[in-house]
Amino acid sequence: MERKKIAIIGTGLIGGSLALQLNEKGLASKLIGVDASPENERVALERGLVDEITSIAEVTEKAEVIILSIPVDQIVILLPGLLDKVTDQIVIDLGSTKSQLTGSVQSHPKRGRYVAAHPMWGTEYSGPAAAVHGAFENKAVILCNVEESDADALEWTKNMFSRIGMHQLYMDAQAHDLHAAYVSHISHITSFALANTVLEKEREDNAIFELASAGFESTVRLAKSNPKMWVPVFKQNRENVLDVLNEHISQLRKFKSCLEKENWEYLEELINDANKIRRIIK
Amino acid sequence: MERKKIAIIGTGLIGGSLALQLNEKGLASKLIGVDASPENERVALERGLVDEITSIAEVTEKAEVIILSIPVDQIVILLPGLLDKVTDQIVIDLGSTKSQLTGSVQSHPKRGRYVAAHPMWGTEYSGPAAAVHGAFENKAVILCNVEESDADALEWTKNMFSRIGMHQLYMDAQAHDLHAAYVSHISHITSFALANTVLEKEREDNAIFELASAGFESTVRLAKSNPKMWVPVFKQNRENVLDVLNEHISQLRKFKSCLEKENWEYLEELINDANKIRRIIK
Repeated sequence: MERKKIAIIGTGLIGGSLALQLNEKGLASKLIGVDASPENERVALERGLVDEITSIAEVTEKAEVIILSIPVDQIVILLPGLLDKVTDQIVIDLGSTKSQLTGSVQSHPKRGRYVAAHPMWGTEYSGPAAAVHGAFENKAVILCNVEESDADALEWTKNMFSRIGMHQLYMDAQAHDLHAAYVSHISHITSFALANTVLEKEREDNAIFELASAGFESTVRLAKSNPKMWVPVFKQNRENVLDVLNEHISQLRKFKSCLEKENWEYLEELINDANKIRRIIK
Repeated sequence: MERKKIAIIGTGLIGGSLALQLNEKGLASKLIGVDASPENERVALERGLVDEITSIAEVTEKAEVIILSIPVDQIVILLPGLLDKVTDQIVIDLGSTKSQLTGSVQSHPKRGRYVAAHPMWGTEYSGPAAAVHGAFENKAVILCNVEESDADALEWTKNMFSRIGMHQLYMDAQAHDLHAAYVSHISHITSFALANTVLEKEREDNAIFELASAGFESTVRLAKSNPKMWVPVFKQNRENVLDVLNEHISQLRKFKSCLEKENWEYLEELINDANKIRRIIK
């Protein structure tokens, strides 16, 4: 696989971790960073995530591949303008929603140069300091509306994801957003709400701190996630997320009703149902 | 610390993991297992968690320390009868609720021989095969109503927990149950309900399986927990759990309302509030 000059717009957790793997796998002849934050640019350079920094205005001149790893509301704003300036460069986005992004450039004359991707990896931390080695290995990446991408752009992108150890799934953007609401977006909302519940009810910080077991930590971990990333995701995937959230609230009401009515048989049944998640998650 | 003959009633995840650490720290001259399940007894022997098996009827004759690590509804049933037969043995329970247990033996003539403890550790697995080494190390254990325990029984119990690496907190049983509802019991309910939400909405098992990221796994992990353990906990801590669950549902409704009304500023505020959990959980 020929090395290319790769620009990463957004040198944070996702972009920075990808940069580390592109480097390790020898996929880049040069890694160029673009970031809205001078501090992020400084850290990205200092950690060696990228070789140099450039501006959005110059990125299409300097790079053959441009990867967008910024909040999805910013991708929607930047993507059409980038494609306006593209000749044969490849543009890839790594956002957590896909319908609005693919919709916004569907009839763009350079649509073929763009590949819509969602690597299923993240942590509750953000910024270039949070970037880690081997992040994407053995994880899934979803490629959306691939029939709208040029064959060469798609081919290179698939090879890149294979080289960093990701298995690939294909979906249309609507199906992606629906599934993402179930398996990712709702988890974040429950975790945010659980953190707020505990912070509201438990006024004694020390008690939480001392008593919190691994179970609590794991359910509340995602509550540390950055609103700058997540508000745009919920905004763009509003209908699917609302639909799953309504279902979740009605599931919680079943537990509440069992407790209120002291219906322990039905409570056991609900928990037995929940145990079936074992079939899916080891 | 003098080695004692220690019986463990309930050789599953908690009892089995404790047996491993009692062995490693040389605290037992003999470890005796009691379990309602012959299969658990077989595995506990085979894994060397215990040296021999006995019956409930004989346990007070054979052991100097008796540790109860069974579901809390069974502890309530067994504890008074055990204390009836105790002379100077020590009886310790490891249940996740404390008010009903301590209440049930409050005026028992042998109350002093009993120490109420809740080690803050567990996993979503159960049975002796799930027992792990070093489980309790650097974790907290809450000792409840210690003024009702005899000085020697309390002293030995505290030493035992210190030797297996647990730091100790003291609370009355009511305070314990309140805090446990916040930092442990509610996490399990949200996780059970989240699993049911996803299993209800997402009919394509393969999609969940392929797409589920680490974030989803961590929030839904506890949904694999055993109903035989958890229904009795919710039953005994019903009022506190209901109270926190009501708060949790109203927190989720705030997120729902933001999405419905497209109030993105307030959504960002809610997430910023949730981020404050960082103050408590690293």
